[in-house]
Amino acid sequence: MGSFLNPNLQPEQFRKQEISLDELERQILSRNITALSQAITLIESARKEDREKAATFVSRILPHTGNSIRIGISGIPGVGKSTFIEAFGMFLIEKLGRKVAILAVDPSSQRTGGSILGDKTRMERLAQLDEAYIRPSPSAGSLGGVANKTRQSILLCEAAGFDTILVETVGVGQSETAVKSMTDAFLLLLLPGAGDELQGIKRGIMEMADIIAINKADGDNLRAAKTAAGEVKRALHLYPTQESGWHVPVETCSALSQIGIDTLWERLSSFENHMKIKGYFENNRSLQFRLWFEEELREGILRSTMERADFQKEYQNEKQLIAAQQKNPVEAVLALLKSL
Amino acid sequence: MGSFLNPNLQPEQFRKQEISLDELERQILSRNITALSQAITLIESARKEDREKAATFVSRILPHTGNSIRIGISGIPGVGKSTFIEAFGMFLIEKLGRKVAILAVDPSSQRTGGSILGDKTRMERLAQLDEAYIRPSPSAGSLGGVANKTRQSILLCEAAGFDTILVETVGVGQSETAVKSMTDAFLLLLLPGAGDELQGIKRGIMEMADIIAINKADGDNLRAAKTAAGEVKRALHLYPTQESGWHVPVETCSALSQIGIDTLWERLSSFENHMKIKGYFENNRSLQFRLWFEEELREGILRSTMERADFQKEYQNEKQLIAAQQKNPVEAVLALLKSL
Repeated sequence: MGSFLNPNLQPEQFRKQEISLDELERQILSRNITALSQAITLIESARKEDREKAATFVSRILPHTGNSIRIGISGIPGVGKSTFIEAFGMFLIEKLGRKVAILAVDPSSQRTGGSILGDKTRMERLAQLDEAYIRPSPSAGSLGGVANKTRQSILLCEAAGFDTILVETVGVGQSETAVKSMTDAFLLLLLPGAGDELQGIKRGIMEMADIIAINKADGDNLRAAKTAAGEVKRALHLYPTQESGWHVPVETCSALSQIGIDTLWERLSSFENHMKIKGYFENNRSLQFRLWFEEELREGILRSTMERADFQKEYQNEKQLIAAQQKNPVEAVLALLKSL
Repeated sequence: MGSFLNPNLQPEQFRKQEISLDELERQILSRNITALSQAITLIESARKEDREKAATFVSRILPHTGNSIRIGISGIPGVGKSTFIEAFGMFLIEKLGRKVAILAVDPSSQRTGGSILGDKTRMERLAQLDEAYIRPSPSAGSLGGVANKTRQSILLCEAAGFDTILVETVGVGQSETAVKSMTDAFLLLLLPGAGDELQGIKRGIMEMADIIAINKADGDNLRAAKTAAGEVKRALHLYPTQESGWHVPVETCSALSQIGIDTLWERLSSFENHMKIKGYFENNRSLQFRLWFEEELREGILRSTMERADFQKEYQNEKQLIAAQQKNPVEAVLALLKSL
């Protein structure tokens, strides 16, 4: 039954196919991956016609979501994030029978067909398993919204039966905040050589971490990794303790040699338990739910204003006046707002 | 004459004083620092009444702006940015007779009275000179706008006769992009120990740099700094050359021992010349002017919508439905947008 959905359909073709939302929902709940991809494509669509449809669909799917642990994974370039996610994902699937979805948030992403392939080739083994689903970052629209789209993709993955959602940060600093705002746990990967390393990691990002792992703890790096772990532990004492009383563990691991991956999962499970017992897990999720509303609203207001034909005309007009240096931005905006 | 303006006035008191914009303009153009501070306070004011006044004022002042070099300065925590800015500013004032304004962009700033003092004490010598003006980052409002306020503060400083504007990045990653979008030149400070260091600096930030300096090149660090400079130079070969054909120079300096500061200024002057001769300098400024419009517009749309009493009522209503889990964010936003 599932094969009538062509995974390569563009939103337009998808619409032309006139698959009912009923059918799409049924397919996703019966864990059809192709339907999942289609639904995410619908959510990512910038077309006005798709937006209302997507919103309705998310509402329908919502009662079937939430049954997962959402893990944010961050680390500086070169830390081996892809290798780590591949090793971690394989462990979760093979040893624990979990279903793992991998999403990304990259506010600078201008996706082309190529980078989807890129995401899959950099996690080769994982990409071949039915228990894994890999989806690259939605591409950045002119009015933002990457984070909100990933937020909704998480929900769709959950509805499709994925119980472990890994959300990877890509690109510059702001994606960490976004990923933190949609996950239950935040794993920060560091490299051996902590002294200098710590300075490279912004204080704000260190403070986000629930678990820290020094990756590449293998071969010649083993000693440096242990030293780094010690230094990070000491540095953590300078940060305030988490509100829940959780003490951020610092581990070493090697994604390449698959060492320490199990320990990291144990720490993550302990963290999940700790948060659930104390009520912070649910609190955090409802906070994130409200945050989602604020962000969605901000985007919606901008979009609906810019889409108004009368406003768009005035906007183009003022833009030309600015280009001709006949008006300055502040004056132009005041004029535009008065026309609203 | 200038002394009737109390620098500690809050916007409200300022309004009550009923200083005419004529008078404020006159005072700023006659380089009265107190008037400059007052005008920046007006621009930073979140009050609706102040906003139109501020916009009018910026329009009036605009013809007197632009005659400066705007330099963005970034670097990871611990690189010695304050010490560098103090040494650099002192050099510019004492050796070259320039007038230096120091602004900051910190999207996370929740300013209190204390941190203004903080900014001045961390640049002690500079703070005592009439030829220097130090202003901390505007505090973050709920709808953003920190960058746009700094953008306008630059203009006011120029109108008040400051010919060198240093805009410092503070806080997390996104402030670099903001600072880059309002400056003519971008100086990136790095620490000795490049190998690991480079990994800490996001690729995107390296690509923004027009000049790179390895700071703390003194005493025991001297050798490491030279090595680092070499490594950075090699790493730069991996980046595409700047569109203007400018080759990013990598220098070493010691803000503490005041070594290499003059060379950095020479490089910055060469860059300014290079950009001006090729027309990129002006191109960049008009691009930034248009960008300012887009950002100002975005903020204006959000603000004016959220301020509408009818919308605010609906908004609070939907917010409660979400808190009670009777609606999801997407549905709530759709309903709100329909009420517009």
